[in-house]
Amino acid sequence: MIRTDLAMEAAQAAGQIAGVEVMNDEIRPGVSRSRVTVLNEEGERAIGKKKGVYVTIEAPQLAQGDAEIDEGCTFALANEIRNMAGEALNGVVLVVGLGNRMVTPDSLGPAVCDNVFVTRHIHEYAPEGIDRRLGNVSALAPGVLGITGIETGEVVEGVVEHIKPSLVIAIDSLASRSLERVRTTIQIADTGIAPGAGIGNKRKALDKETLGVPVLALGVPLVVYAATIAQDLMQTAMDKTPSDVNARSSFQRILDAMQDVQGADMIVTPKEIDKVVSDVARIIADALNISLNKDMTIEEVRRYMH
Amino acid sequence: MIRTDLAMEAAQAAGQIAGVEVMNDEIRPGVSRSRVTVLNEEGERAIGKKKGVYVTIEAPQLAQGDAEIDEGCTFALANEIRNMAGEALNGVVLVVGLGNRMVTPDSLGPAVCDNVFVTRHIHEYAPEGIDRRLGNVSALAPGVLGITGIETGEVVEGVVEHIKPSLVIAIDSLASRSLERVRTTIQIADTGIAPGAGIGNKRKALDKETLGVPVLALGVPLVVYAATIAQDLMQTAMDKTPSDVNARSSFQRILDAMQDVQGADMIVTPKEIDKVVSDVARIIADALNISLNKDMTIEEVRRYMH
Amino acid sequence: MIRTDLAMEAAQAAGQIAGVEVMNDEIRPGVSRSRVTVLNEEGERAIGKKKGVYVTIEAPQLAQGDAEIDEGCTFALANEIRNMAGEALNGVVLVVGLGNRMVTPDSLGPAVCDNVFVTRHIHEYAPEGIDRRLGNVSALAPGVLGITGIETGEVVEGVVEHIKPSLVIAIDSLASRSLERVRTTIQIADTGIAPGAGIGNKRKALDKETLGVPVLALGVPLVVYAATIAQDLMQTAMDKTPSDVNARSSFQRILDAMQDVQGADMIVTPKEIDKVVSDVARIIADALNISLNKDMTIEEVRRYMH
Amino acid sequence: MIRTDLAMEAAQAAGQIAGVEVMNDEIRPGVSRSRVTVLNEEGERAIGKKKGVYVTIEAPQLAQGDAEIDEGCTFALANEIRNMAGEALNGVVLVVGLGNRMVTPDSLGPAVCDNVFVTRHIHEYAPEGIDRRLGNVSALAPGVLGITGIETGEVVEGVVEHIKPSLVIAIDSLASRSLERVRTTIQIADTGIAPGAGIGNKRKALDKETLGVPVLALGVPLVVYAATIAQDLMQTAMDKTPSDVNARSSFQRILDAMQDVQGADMIVTPKEIDKVVSDVARIIADALNISLNKDMTIEEVRRYMH
Repeated sequence: MIRTDLAMEAAQAAGQIAGVEVMNDEIRPGVSRSRVTVLNEEGERAIGKKKGVYVTIEAPQLAQGDAEIDEGCTFALANEIRNMAGEALNGVVLVVGLGNRMVTPDSLGPAVCDNVFVTRHIHEYAPEGIDRRLGNVSALAPGVLGITGIETGEVVEGVVEHIKPSLVIAIDSLASRSLERVRTTIQIADTGIAPGAGIGNKRKALDKETLGVPVLALGVPLVVYAATIAQDLMQTAMDKTPSDVNARSSFQRILDAMQDVQGADMIVTPKEIDKVVSDVARIIADALNISLNKDMTIEEVRRYMH
Repeated sequence: MIRTDLAMEAAQAAGQIAGVEVMNDEIRPGVSRSRVTVLNEEGERAIGKKKGVYVTIEAPQLAQGDAEIDEGCTFALANEIRNMAGEALNGVVLVVGLGNRMVTPDSLGPAVCDNVFVTRHIHEYAPEGIDRRLGNVSALAPGVLGITGIETGEVVEGVVEHIKPSLVIAIDSLASRSLERVRTTIQIADTGIAPGAGIGNKRKALDKETLGVPVLALGVPLVVYAATIAQDLMQTAMDKTPSDVNARSSFQRILDAMQDVQGADMIVTPKEIDKVVSDVARIIADALNISLNKDMTIEEVRRYMH
Repeated sequence: MIRTDLAMEAAQAAGQIAGVEVMNDEIRPGVSRSRVTVLNEEGERAIGKKKGVYVTIEAPQLAQGDAEIDEGCTFALANEIRNMAGEALNGVVLVVGLGNRMVTPDSLGPAVCDNVFVTRHIHEYAPEGIDRRLGNVSALAPGVLGITGIETGEVVEGVVEHIKPSLVIAIDSLASRSLERVRTTIQIADTGIAPGAGIGNKRKALDKETLGVPVLALGVPLVVYAATIAQDLMQTAMDKTPSDVNARSSFQRILDAMQDVQGADMIVTPKEIDKVVSDVARIIADALNISLNKDMTIEEVRRYMH
Repeated sequence: MIRTDLAMEAAQAAGQIAGVEVMNDEIRPGVSRSRVTVLNEEGERAIGKKKGVYVTIEAPQLAQGDAEIDEGCTFALANEIRNMAGEALNGVVLVVGLGNRMVTPDSLGPAVCDNVFVTRHIHEYAPEGIDRRLGNVSALAPGVLGITGIETGEVVEGVVEHIKPSLVIAIDSLASRSLERVRTTIQIADTGIAPGAGIGNKRKALDKETLGVPVLALGVPLVVYAATIAQDLMQTAMDKTPSDVNARSSFQRILDAMQDVQGADMIVTPKEIDKVVSDVARIIADALNISLNKDMTIEEVRRYMH
């Protein structure tokens, strides 16, 4: 069982197992979908993920300028949000943008919030004549512990108690185990966010137990920690060259740099991470905007927002 | 009685009056201080401000590159914070940065939060061996209603209930009635923030009644609404040329543009408002950093923060 | 003759005059166009503008969220660029974004550069198989004198000598005399940019004489100097209340604040200037992108750019 | 001979060789200096670097909040600038900030420009009563080819021809071969910048030959390309496990991801790269500000700049 934010990676590693259902299909050329359902405690133990549904939308060309691929992901993601949220979409939805606005690879959540069409205040303060297609959407980027001194979960709990949403959707930058997933994968799960997931440190879960309402967790891998790659390579070296002392010490030297004091903070990420975050944030915000409102196109929402 | 965010302006307009004490002194060359104390309901009615202490630090050369003036304001402000907060500084302090990060003249609050030395999480999660001079400081920039769909007061109330601070210090960009106050005046009051104050729209007060803990309100005028200036000029024109129809219609034409549909959003502000916000935010954050921690210089705090 | 960046304002002030032709038409509901042609030296003297064509596209609802208005302005502007540039569009075009990226109201030029589809390097370094619809476009934001220590004109001249464009298009934030023009007017002229125009200080002209190639100047008024408004009001007060000493001194007091040491840097501008600059920059960049390339829609260019 | 931007790495790889002098010393605890002098063509061939002096200032704790280390680097760097520049400091100095402002790891050059004290325009336009300690400094961030369509060298050449500086100092983000150098090393050389150096693509050299004036090149490694690490590991695997097919194919799989289509754009960089760039830019700008002006402290320059 490997440790990873992505249920799909865990399921792949585990192979066919009791308590876990895996379904893969291609949505359109270049966009595929994997649905992992953890059915029971047996499944939980097998892949180390909570009971629930984990959908992964994969597109190797995501956010690389192919408008059809990006739109395909937007629509696929909007569908999953509608399916997972169900009736909860009729109430107040709180979008929570996790992560640190000042740390580019960790800024996906706040960037999505900046692009979500927020409407709760219209329902509250100017409800007369409101377009009935509009959802009831609020959005909060609570900052991270190192910047606020406050656990993200404490801020979100406090707000949830006050505005009493029927659904929380939490967005986060993820760290992946695999370079291939970086910028190519969107994961959405109906299980909320576990402590310690994402790029930043979260000490509290954001889920139905802690917040009292359903929590969808939506994330995109944007980095791999250098130390993770080093560990993987090291393990391979250990396994494959058990007796070749020279080979192992040669690897050791290169890999040490990837996980020493300096390397602890080192990440592998796309060079154009600023643009990647901005493009992926737009794709996710588009998906939220067409699923949280009814019968509206991306263009209609955009016109409203300006 | 004129309507203004600044108690000093209100008191000046009212003249010497029962229920209000005014004290002025010069702190150092170029920096003066005005303290308005509203003693009772009579005073409240007279100047339209809640019972409490309102201190205004004035420096015409504030944030214009004179390091001594800026430091003088920092120290003066730190003193007022210490005086007003008293014992409350020994508990958890929550700094709230009001306003909209994306609207430059309204971004003072979030900019201050970015520069405050946040330490609450160290006390919570790594208390062993902590420098005893450090305060217990948290900071939150909750966003504005139009961006989050959530009343600022709702976010702050929720967080206050969770982290139970002994003091809240709210920072805000202010709209002034007078161009002379823009960028030259720092106001701090122990009364909290009234609904509708500041550049953005607040519908709920942030004060001891709503939050259950003392609230210091700290603001700097950064804009005058063009419509306000137009009204003032119009009133003068009405008063001074009661029978000169031509004069009045000439003024009317010019002034209409300042308060028509377009003008409603027009502000008068320093051309270099980006730099003004950044400089004033640093001055206020320095004052917070040396008053919320004990026996530390600005330089010592800065070294800690990096 | 009043002093203004806008030829239309000058022509309106002058009335019907020899040497100047004025043509107005409505392009579509909400978008009108005014074309002022200064025919000869007589016209130059009459309105204080160089011989040439000055087109003003006016839309009171520009950049306020009405997508049809914004598109109407984009197409109208693209037409004028095509008309004024003519054959020069077949060569290398250099877009120059004047102004200071760090001063929001002065950042229109750099913001347009960020959104222009730049293609010159493809022609230079990867010409094989290039889409024949693509123009040959370069873009430069040379910064301002106070930031670089170098006159904008010196940077542009140096680059023009090296890349030898057939056309320069200079974009600038303008200061207007009139609040009504702020954010509602796009001016384009085939005369280049005169020294001292725009919000920043330019000491050298950017025109055919200095650069040796045709220069289109494209600008949008985004501020009025507070001192300008004060002067206008003062003049009106002087004219209309010549003998009313009290009235004049009352006005004087209010207006002084608008043009004193502080007021010299004060501008009147939309509160949401950050968003206004970003929206107007997109409109202008769209117009450039569809006029500098051939037979391409806005969407086609956007796909190319990502 | 390995390929690297850093002369020191090349010299270390080469060992003791004719035509190359290497000198190492410790400047203060935590800050050491390495000076590589390539004396002649023999040395050039040996380490693949042009004749000249390459100084590397190394501080493993650079930009990590230790003010004394950072100041030590600032002073050491300022000394090298003074030594290498000599008399050229008496004329106009042009600081060129290479790289892309919009790509965080490549934005060091523009960030330094934002913090350099620019004075040339004061000498030009307001020379009377100027502080005689002030240098004559200009600064330009010319953008990158993909953004401007113009070769950086073409912009710089054009400006150099116009303002005729006596010295150019080019600042750039570097790609290193070694993770240990990232954020810990400042290199300065009197040889200018070679084509293809730095993170972006430069096709033209910036040196005395192309510009006609001495060019100092100042760079800091901020990234390692993932593909570079993969190549190094691959080479080690090839060398050490020549006959172990399984081991090699296992490594292959992991490493492929680091240099495939996706991985080509992948970099290894500090997670907090935004802050690293801002801190390192301040250190370099401080060094420029105290070496390009005479007898001024960092604090004196900062007061001037505001």
